[in-house]
Amino acid sequence: MGFWKSFFSSSDAASGQTQFEGEAIEGTIDRTDNTSRIFFSTDRDIDLYELEELCDAVGWSRRPMRKVKKAIQHSFLVTSMWQQRGNTKRLIGFARATSDHAFNATIWDVVVHPDFQTKGLGKALMKYMIRKLRNEDISNITLFADPHVVNFYRRMGFMADPEGIKGMFWYPD
Amino acid sequence: MGFWKSFFSSSDAASGQTQFEGEAIEGTIDRTDNTSRIFFSTDRDIDLYELEELCDAVGWSRRPMRKVKKAIQHSFLVTSMWQQRGNTKRLIGFARATSDHAFNATIWDVVVHPDFQTKGLGKALMKYMIRKLRNEDISNITLFADPHVVNFYRRMGFMADPEGIKGMFWYPD
Ligand SMILES: CC(C)(COP(=O)(O)OP(=O)(O)OC[C@H]1O[C@@H](n2cnc3c(N)ncnc32)[C@H](O)[C@@H]1OP(=O)(O)O)[C@@H](O)C(=O)NCCC(=O)NCCS
Ligand SMILES: CC(C)(COP(=O)(O)OP(=O)(O)OC[C@H]1O[C@@H](n2cnc3c(N)ncnc32)[C@H](O)[C@@H]1OP(=O)(O)O)[C@@H](O)C(=O)NCCC(=O)NCCS
Repeated sequence: MGFWKSFFSSSDAASGQTQFEGEAIEGTIDRTDNTSRIFFSTDRDIDLYELEELCDAVGWSRRPMRKVKKAIQHSFLVTSMWQQRGNTKRLIGFARATSDHAFNATIWDVVVHPDFQTKGLGKALMKYMIRKLRNEDISNITLFADPHVVNFYRRMGFMADPEGIKGMFWYPD
Repeated sequence: MGFWKSFFSSSDAASGQTQFEGEAIEGTIDRTDNTSRIFFSTDRDIDLYELEELCDAVGWSRRPMRKVKKAIQHSFLVTSMWQQRGNTKRLIGFARATSDHAFNATIWDVVVHPDFQTKGLGKALMKYMIRKLRNEDISNITLFADPHVVNFYRRMGFMADPEGIKGMFWYPD
C-alpha cells in the first residue's frame, strides 16, 4: 500500500512510453519490471467485452450489453482504470456515476480486477471519481454499498445513514 | 384516504373543463366545490418560482434557481402534480429521478404541499413515478429517505437496507 501511495502523491509525468488518451494518475506506477504504468480515463469508448470480462472476474452476474452501453452513455461520469505495458493496455478498474449535473451524483459499479486489488487502486479510483464530481460542483455524492464494502467506502470519507437517512430500494409486490 | 382512493381507481375522464397538458391521474378528483381536479405532468417547463414556493412551504432550504433548472433538465423523469380549478392550475406536488436510462433510477425531491398532504396524493405521486420508471424498463428504483419518511416509502414497497446494502454519503474531511 505505502509503495503505491508514494507514487500516487508524486507528480512525475510518465516518461518515454506510448501515451494513451486519458488522464494519468499523478505519477507513473512502476512495478516489478519497470515497464508498466497505471492511468485513468473518462473516455466512454470502452470495449464492452473487456468490461464484461472485468465484471466476470469479480463474479458479477452478466448484464445485457445493449443495456450496459446505454447506461454508460447516460452516466454523468465514467472512469476506467488501465494498466499500460509498452503499447498494450488492459482494463483493470471501472466506476461510473449518475447525476442531475447540479446537486447529486450516485456512484455505481465500482470494480478493481482481483489481480490488482489490495494495492490502493480502488481508493485511487474512488478519489479520482470524487475529485471529478467535486470539480463539476456536485455537492452530494452518494452510493449504495454492499455490506462487505461499507468499510472500504468509509475509509474514503463516505458515511452510512448520516442523520438517519436511509437508502431504500423498491421491490415489486 | 378512502375517498381519494376510490377516485384514483375509477377511470372516469375529466369532463367539461379546460384540459392542461399532462396526464390526469385516473379519474377526476372533485372536492368541496365540484370544480377542482388533480393531474400529473412530466412536462419540465415548470415555473421555477412556483416550485420554490412549494419547497418553501415544506421548509426546505432555498437552492440557486440556475442549479434547480439544470437539475430538472438533467433528471431522467420529472413529475409535477397540479390542482386545476376552472382555467387556473396550481403546483401542489413534485418529484424527480436521476437515472442511467438502463438499470438504476434514484428518486429525489419528493414533496406534496402541506394543504394537500395526508390525502393519499404523495402515494399517488410515488406510484406514478414508479409506473413511469418501470415503463422505461428500469429495474432498480432507489432513494434516500429522511428518517421521518422511511415509513411513508415503506408503504409504497420500498425496503431500507435490503440484504445489508447501505446508503452512503460523502463528506469532505
Ligand atoms: C471493493 C474494491 C473496489 C476495493 O478495491 P481495492 O483496490 O482492493 O481497494 P484498496 O486496495 O484501494 O483499499 C483501500 C482501503 O480500503 C480497504 N479495503 C479494501 N477492500 C475492503 C473491503 N472489502 N472491506 C473493508 N476495507 C477494504 C483497504 O484495506 C485499504 O485500507 P487502507 O487505506 O487503510 O490501507 C475491490 O475489492 C473490488 O472490486 N471488489 C469487487 C467488486 C465490489 O464488491 N465492488 C463494490 C460494489 S458495492
Ligand atoms: C412525505 C410526503 C410527500 C407524503 O405525502 P402525503 O400526500 O402526505 O402522503 P399520503 O397521504 O399519500 O400518505 C400515504 C401513506 O403514507 C403514510 N404517510 C404519510 N406521511 C408519512 C410519514 N411522514 N411517515 C409515515 N407514514 C406516512 C400515510 O399515512 C399513508 O398511509 P396509508 O396508505 O396506510 O393510509 C409529504 O408529507 C411531504 O411533502 N413532506 C415534506 C417533504 C418531505 O419530507 N419529503 C421527503 C423527503 S425524503
